[in-house]
Amino acid sequence: MMETNKPLLALTMGDPAGSGAELLTRAAADRELTDHSRLLVVGDAWLMEKALAITGVPLQIRGIGTVMEAVFEPGVLDVLDLKNVDRETHQFGVVDPMCGKAAYDFISRAHQLCSEGTVGAMVTSAINKESLNKAGYHFDGHTGLLSHLCGVEKVTMMLVADGLRICHVSTHVSLAEAISRVSRERILDVLEIAITGIKGLGIEAPKLAVAGLNPHAGEDGLFGTEEIDTIQPAIQTAVERGWQVTGPYAGDTVFFRAWQGEFDGVVAMYHDQGHIAAKMLGIWNGVNVTLGLPIIRTSVEHGTDFANAGKGSSDPRSLKAAIQLAAQMANQKSKP
Amino acid sequence: MMETNKPLLALTMGDPAGSGAELLTRAAADRELTDHSRLLVVGDAWLMEKALAITGVPLQIRGIGTVMEAVFEPGVLDVLDLKNVDRETHQFGVVDPMCGKAAYDFISRAHQLCSEGTVGAMVTSAINKESLNKAGYHFDGHTGLLSHLCGVEKVTMMLVADGLRICHVSTHVSLAEAISRVSRERILDVLEIAITGIKGLGIEAPKLAVAGLNPHAGEDGLFGTEEIDTIQPAIQTAVERGWQVTGPYAGDTVFFRAWQGEFDGVVAMYHDQGHIAAKMLGIWNGVNVTLGLPIIRTSVEHGTDFANAGKGSSDPRSLKAAIQLAAQMANQKSKP
Repeated sequence: MMETNKPLLALTMGDPAGSGAELLTRAAADRELTDHSRLLVVGDAWLMEKALAITGVPLQIRGIGTVMEAVFEPGVLDVLDLKNVDRETHQFGVVDPMCGKAAYDFISRAHQLCSEGTVGAMVTSAINKESLNKAGYHFDGHTGLLSHLCGVEKVTMMLVADGLRICHVSTHVSLAEAISRVSRERILDVLEIAITGIKGLGIEAPKLAVAGLNPHAGEDGLFGTEEIDTIQPAIQTAVERGWQVTGPYAGDTVFFRAWQGEFDGVVAMYHDQGHIAAKMLGIWNGVNVTLGLPIIRTSVEHGTDFANAGKGSSDPRSLKAAIQLAAQMANQKSKP
Repeated sequence: MMETNKPLLALTMGDPAGSGAELLTRAAADRELTDHSRLLVVGDAWLMEKALAITGVPLQIRGIGTVMEAVFEPGVLDVLDLKNVDRETHQFGVVDPMCGKAAYDFISRAHQLCSEGTVGAMVTSAINKESLNKAGYHFDGHTGLLSHLCGVEKVTMMLVADGLRICHVSTHVSLAEAISRVSRERILDVLEIAITGIKGLGIEAPKLAVAGLNPHAGEDGLFGTEEIDTIQPAIQTAVERGWQVTGPYAGDTVFFRAWQGEFDGVVAMYHDQGHIAAKMLGIWNGVNVTLGLPIIRTSVEHGTDFANAGKGSSDPRSLKAAIQLAAQMANQKSKP
C-alpha cells in the first residue's frame, strides 16, 4: 500500500439493488477527488464490474481481500470484495433481504476499518430500510445502526449543503412526536455535538443559530410557548457555558440567513424544518454527516433511487460532495 | 383620469413607522412596473414626501383627494392622501397606535376601492400587528382583516416565489395547533381555493402537489398516520372531483420539485413547511397572495423592517414582484 498524506476513505456500496455501485464508478473517475483522497470501495467486485459496464466510465475495478492489497492507482478502483451479492438472484430496483444483508455487511466492515484506524473516514451510499429490516437488522437507517455499532447514544444528523450546516433535534419520528422531543437537555446535547462537529470541519469557534419550533419562533408566545419554556432557557444555558449560540430565530428565515454566511450552523427542531431548507439548494447536492460518533461518517443525502438503478442515470453530486467532506474532516482530525 | 388598458392598482403604504413608504417610492420609479400598470398609493402624502427625501429617487409625489384626480404620468406618483399620519409624533421603527390606525385606514380604503371596482387589485405593504392591536383592531394580520372586510371565511395564504406557488392549510398558529388543523375538509377547501387562484394567474388546468405532514410523508405510517388517515383520503376525493392533485409527497423534496416545474403549486400542511421553501429562494423575493377573497390582493412577503425604516436601505424586490403579480392577476380577471 502506497504511503501518502492523502486520507484513506472507505466507501460503502449501499443497497445492491440501488444506484450506489454506479455512483461509485462515477465518483472514482473524478480526478479532483482521487487527487485529494485514496478511495476504497467496501462492496462486491462483481456488482461493481456490472455497474461499470452500465456507466461506461474509464476505470478498472480491482477486487481485493484486504486493505493492504490496495494500490490507489489513477484509473483503478480498489474494491474490498465481500463477495456477498448473489449473482443469480440480483435485480436492480427491488426490495430483497439478500441485498439488505449485503448492505449491512458493507457498513459493518467499513465501521470496523474506521474503528481500528485503518481508514480515516467512511462514506456511505444509500440503503433500503425495508430490505435491511427483512434481512433481520431492525434499524431506522445508518444513524441508528452506526450508533449501535459504536455504542453511543447522543448523535445528531447534520445536513451540509453549499456551506449551510444543519443539525436536527429529531429526525425520523412523526411531527407530533418531534414536538415532544424538543427538550432543554436534547437541545443542549445537539448544540454540544454540533459545535464539536463543526470544529471538525476546521471552524475554530462556530457561531450557531437555534431555530424556533413555531411560526415566527412563536412571536412572543402568540403562536406556541415552546420557545419561551424550553428553547430560550436552553440557549441561555449554552451561552453560560461560553458557547456562541443565539436564537430562537423564525424558522422560515434562519436557514437562508445561515446560508448567506451569518451563522456557521443552525439547530433545526425537526426533520422537515432542516431538510426543506437544505434540499431547496438541490436534492442531489447535500451531504449527511452523523455527528457524535467516535468515527467520521458522511453520506449521500438521497435514497437508493430504485427508479433509475441499473440505468446509469443517477446523479453523483451528493456522493462526490460526501467524499470531499469526509476527506476534509479526516484531514482536520489528523492535524497535530 | 387617463383611460388605458393598464390595470389600476391600489398600493397601501403599510405601517407608517415601517419601510413601506420608502419601498413605494422605489417601486414607483421602476419604469418596467409603470409601463404595465397604473399605480396609486393609498397613504399619507406628507410621509411619502419624507420617504422620497430619504430614498432620493427621481419622482414627484402628487397628493390627491379622489381617484378621479390621478394622472398616472411618468415620474409622478399619485397618492390618495388620507392625511392620517401625525407629523408631530411620527417616528420610524417604533410601535405606535397612531400608526396602527393609519395602516388600518389605508387597507380599509383600498379594500373599498377594490370592492366597488374602482381599482383592479390591491397590493399591501407590511403592517405591525402590535400597533394594529394597540389601535383597537384585533386581527392577526392582513389575511384576517381582509377576510373580515370581505365577509368570507375560507381563505388561504399563497406564497409565490420565482414560479414556486405554495398554499397553506394553516399559517399563524402553533405547530401543535397546526397538526390538529390538518383535516380532510380543510385540505379540500385549500385545494379548491388554490386551483381557482392559480387559474387566476392564467394557468388553465393547474397540477397540484400535496405535501405530507410527517417526515418522508410518514413513510407508510412508520412516522405518523395523518397521511393515511386524512391526507390520502382528501387527495382521493379531490381526484374524484376531477382535480389534478397528487401526493402526499415528502415535504423535504416536493417544493424543490415544484420549483423545477413538476407541479403548478404545492399545498403545505403548516406555515414553516411552505415558508422555509419559499424563503430559501430569497427573503426579499417572495410575494404573498390571499386566495379566496372576492378581490385581488397581493402583498410583500416581509415585515415592516423597523430596523432599517427611515434609512433608505430596505430591499424593494418583494414589493415589485407583488405589483407585477397583482397586475398579472388583474389582467387575467378582466379577460372576456
